[in-house]
Amino acid sequence: MRVAGLISGTSVDGIDVAVVDIGDTIQVVAWKTVPYAPEVRKAILSVSNTDTHTATIARLNFLLGELFADALRKGGVPLETIELIGSHGQTIFHEGEPIEFLGHKVASTLQIGEAAVIAERTGIETIADFRPADIAAGGKGAPLVPFLDYQLFRHPELARVALNIGGIANVTVIPANARPEDVIAFDTGPGNMVMDTLATPFDRDGECARAGRVNEALLEQLLADPYYHRDPPKSCGREQYGAEFVRNSGIDVATATGLTVRTIARAIERYPATREVIVSGGGAHNVYLMERLRAVLNPRVTTSAEFGIDVDAKEAILFAVLAYETHHQRASNLPSATGARKPVILGKISKG
Amino acid sequence: MRVAGLISGTSVDGIDVAVVDIGDTIQVVAWKTVPYAPEVRKAILSVSNTDTHTATIARLNFLLGELFADALRKGGVPLETIELIGSHGQTIFHEGEPIEFLGHKVASTLQIGEAAVIAERTGIETIADFRPADIAAGGKGAPLVPFLDYQLFRHPELARVALNIGGIANVTVIPANARPEDVIAFDTGPGNMVMDTLATPFDRDGECARAGRVNEALLEQLLADPYYHRDPPKSCGREQYGAEFVRNSGIDVATATGLTVRTIARAIERYPATREVIVSGGGAHNVYLMERLRAVLNPRVTTSAEFGIDVDAKEAILFAVLAYETHHQRASNLPSATGARKPVILGKISKG
Repeated sequence: MRVAGLISGTSVDGIDVAVVDIGDTIQVVAWKTVPYAPEVRKAILSVSNTDTHTATIARLNFLLGELFADALRKGGVPLETIELIGSHGQTIFHEGEPIEFLGHKVASTLQIGEAAVIAERTGIETIADFRPADIAAGGKGAPLVPFLDYQLFRHPELARVALNIGGIANVTVIPANARPEDVIAFDTGPGNMVMDTLATPFDRDGECARAGRVNEALLEQLLADPYYHRDPPKSCGREQYGAEFVRNSGIDVATATGLTVRTIARAIERYPATREVIVSGGGAHNVYLMERLRAVLNPRVTTSAEFGIDVDAKEAILFAVLAYETHHQRASNLPSATGARKPVILGKISKG
Repeated sequence: MRVAGLISGTSVDGIDVAVVDIGDTIQVVAWKTVPYAPEVRKAILSVSNTDTHTATIARLNFLLGELFADALRKGGVPLETIELIGSHGQTIFHEGEPIEFLGHKVASTLQIGEAAVIAERTGIETIADFRPADIAAGGKGAPLVPFLDYQLFRHPELARVALNIGGIANVTVIPANARPEDVIAFDTGPGNMVMDTLATPFDRDGECARAGRVNEALLEQLLADPYYHRDPPKSCGREQYGAEFVRNSGIDVATATGLTVRTIARAIERYPATREVIVSGGGAHNVYLMERLRAVLNPRVTTSAEFGIDVDAKEAILFAVLAYETHHQRASNLPSATGARKPVILGKISKG
């Protein structure tokens, strides 16, 4: 077997490449050092070794591995019955669109929660780090949930929309009898973020919003934001609807609920064939929000619980399903959702 | 197949666990959120998202993936003939001994150089991140090279020592007819570090040292450092022999060479059965250093080149060999060298 070995050492001079034929003996075919550009070497040294922030990331990565393994142990299912683990870990950085970096175009994402620790503590094969392969293939590394929505909700005759209402709301549009490449996914705008910032304590059922009154003039003004009129694919960041948005707009909780409902409705109206909207995420608990959605949407509005998927569990389920696909050497990104050039096998495998 | 899914979301509330039976259908068996302790949540938020230093690490990780793939392309061997890649990446943090961290004992290591990028650009299965599994199994995540030394140099009748002279010098002691658990490995003390700091320009052949005169009184004083008398396993950090050491001791290049030679000799004398010392690393180019080693050591002194291993290529070759072992589902840490509780399969597999 011809195997390449790559390393960049502590001196950070460059990348050592060795190509070796391995069988009964080890035969070196070629070897070479490819030096770094000075600015790359400088950047590596700037984050290396003694730096406190790098230490925190490294230590947290291992600690989260321990905590993830503990969490699974507390999950209520005997470990001996579990055959495979898919762990998303914790995202600490995500930049799906390439930026200029040291003279290169670079998109990146960074999740921590060491999979080698999860695999060792549980003795179970663990697949993690699902987003990088999609980014490597030119995608944004997100969203990954449309793959699960497609698996769960595709229907030979019914056009459906899976609507997740987290901090941001996003939809997966699944036409009747859809092929994977027919699936469309995008962020519709704010989900619970603006409402949560305004309602204290957290207005899970939406009673604060129900008691308030929508400021129609402000709502119309906010709906003029070109984001809501742009064609998908598109995604909006958390920073867009943070504390600053609340301060600058002077929005109240009733109007925030209105903004979430109207932007969701506008997004779904683009797909008039839709017969069912299947809601998941924290927003599905908001009774008033669900009432308003049912009032303004033509399609039947239900929740993923009708399909056996607890509205809060969908993301964790997603990573079990993605691990299953990777274990079977199958691709599980949807290029129509992430923008990748092609379907790719996601994740990295750690043996238990 | 029963599969667990784990995620900690952007809200950083806790770890979501879902256990799912997957086959023709997807059946949720259990799901739960396990909350974080407040200090863990705070630490995660402190390194998340917008932080510039985290951004640099994330972007460098992807950029190094590109550069590693480029380096392999420049390695002189057609990619189509290569079946597997083992990439060590770039270590930016290593703390093999557990420290107290947020109320837990945590050892950690952090390598960057995104393997998903290498796998995508080359189309070749890439195995990376070799150190975490050993740390997860209670080891120090280093040294890994004794596994290769054992493969290359074990002999039914000859006791051998593989000596690598990098910044730090280290030995792998391989008794005649050794089993893996008989192998001993440790750092002997300074390698080229002190000499390199003193000789400008870099005294590759050792001519500066040869022209100088050893300060015997200072050398005896330095050799009294209890590190050199301690039993292995032991390892010394780069910080121990940096600019400060040079300043404080007032050492010159001839005496520095003497210190390297004497500490190596003292380490090898612990194993009087040794018949051959096989040198690799940058120090093998230092003609004067090699002469001195031959003068003071009883065993025959040769270099790894005699075994077809370029003295500078050993580490890159190591990661090709470790990838090969992992690909064949075999463990490749040596617990007697790393301190791990058991042999474990190292690395994470990214499909090409």
